[in-house]
Amino acid sequence: MKNFILPIEKLVASFSKLPGVGRKTAVRYAYYIINSSNADVRAFAETMVNAKETVHYCSVCGNFTDREICEVCTRGDRGLVCVVAEPKDVLALERVSDYNGTYHVLHGLLNPLEGITPNDIHIKELLDRVGKDHVREVIMATSPTVEGEATAIYISNLLHPLGVKVTRLAQGVSLGTDIEYVDEVTLSRALEDRREI
Amino acid sequence: MKNFILPIEKLVASFSKLPGVGRKTAVRYAYYIINSSNADVRAFAETMVNAKETVHYCSVCGNFTDREICEVCTRGDRGLVCVVAEPKDVLALERVSDYNGTYHVLHGLLNPLEGITPNDIHIKELLDRVGKDHVREVIMATSPTVEGEATAIYISNLLHPLGVKVTRLAQGVSLGTDIEYVDEVTLSRALEDRREI
Repeated sequence: MKNFILPIEKLVASFSKLPGVGRKTAVRYAYYIINSSNADVRAFAETMVNAKETVHYCSVCGNFTDREICEVCTRGDRGLVCVVAEPKDVLALERVSDYNGTYHVLHGLLNPLEGITPNDIHIKELLDRVGKDHVREVIMATSPTVEGEATAIYISNLLHPLGVKVTRLAQGVSLGTDIEYVDEVTLSRALEDRREI
Repeated sequence: MKNFILPIEKLVASFSKLPGVGRKTAVRYAYYIINSSNADVRAFAETMVNAKETVHYCSVCGNFTDREICEVCTRGDRGLVCVVAEPKDVLALERVSDYNGTYHVLHGLLNPLEGITPNDIHIKELLDRVGKDHVREVIMATSPTVEGEATAIYISNLLHPLGVKVTRLAQGVSLGTDIEYVDEVTLSRALEDRREI
């Protein structure tokens, strides 16, 4: 393409690197930036650099934090650990207000096909915590996918010999779901785990 | 939501301002930034500030440029002016390699319902150019929408008394379109403007 202004072209290239952003969307974002005020763009740029430079992994749970040990690990019950795949899962669970335990972020799930082995995710760190923090219960909150289930089973096999209670998030029909469209496996589990009302 | 790390929350708020970006997408972008290297994030931020601060409107055509007068206005035929609504339309037209005229960016289209009147878009600048640059022909390349058509007609009414030839982009079926699905108006215009082969 001839005559594309270089500073915009560079900005489009930067935006194109964001997940799920193609050239057209990147051009839209770039034009939005060009049309914003100088002060707004400077503030955006500073926010970005600031977030990157102050946020790192919590030394206990591996979630993102801007301190040495994150707020959840500081105030939460370290004897109760909920294991998740990614920091964004912590966000989702923190919306549930009555959980007062802590988390452990694996930063991935076992996936032999993609070469992700137990050494590539934070399993060792979890085992260390179990010994150090006298963990009573580990809740496996990985997604009910092939990788999530495999990871949950692998970790529970490591934890059982240590005398830790290992639980799994309940599976069943979601709020607002039409029974007609629920898959067989979920329906069978929901029946199995039925509760008296 | 409790316990959301402040620097990330700020970054999510910044990304949410981009056109078409909701909270979930903004969170995805923010995590991408946090997971990038310090150097990459700094480069992204600098690119953004740099693009904003060096890019402005060309004093002749109103397109974005990093010079006083843009490259197209410098090398192109100023007697032939293609009128478009937005800078991104120039990009699209510049992909057509055999146009050697210049452009005029209106920065909007007439839209009385949204309060956009002739004074809000760059029509006066176009009329100035017609006198100053001895413009022979003005090609109206606004989109074939209600606003685009209204703007084209309004401007052509202003230009006719000045003795300028005013043309409009041809309308017809697009390459690769299935005739079955072409709307009536387009089909009727395509029939009317049929060419001998």
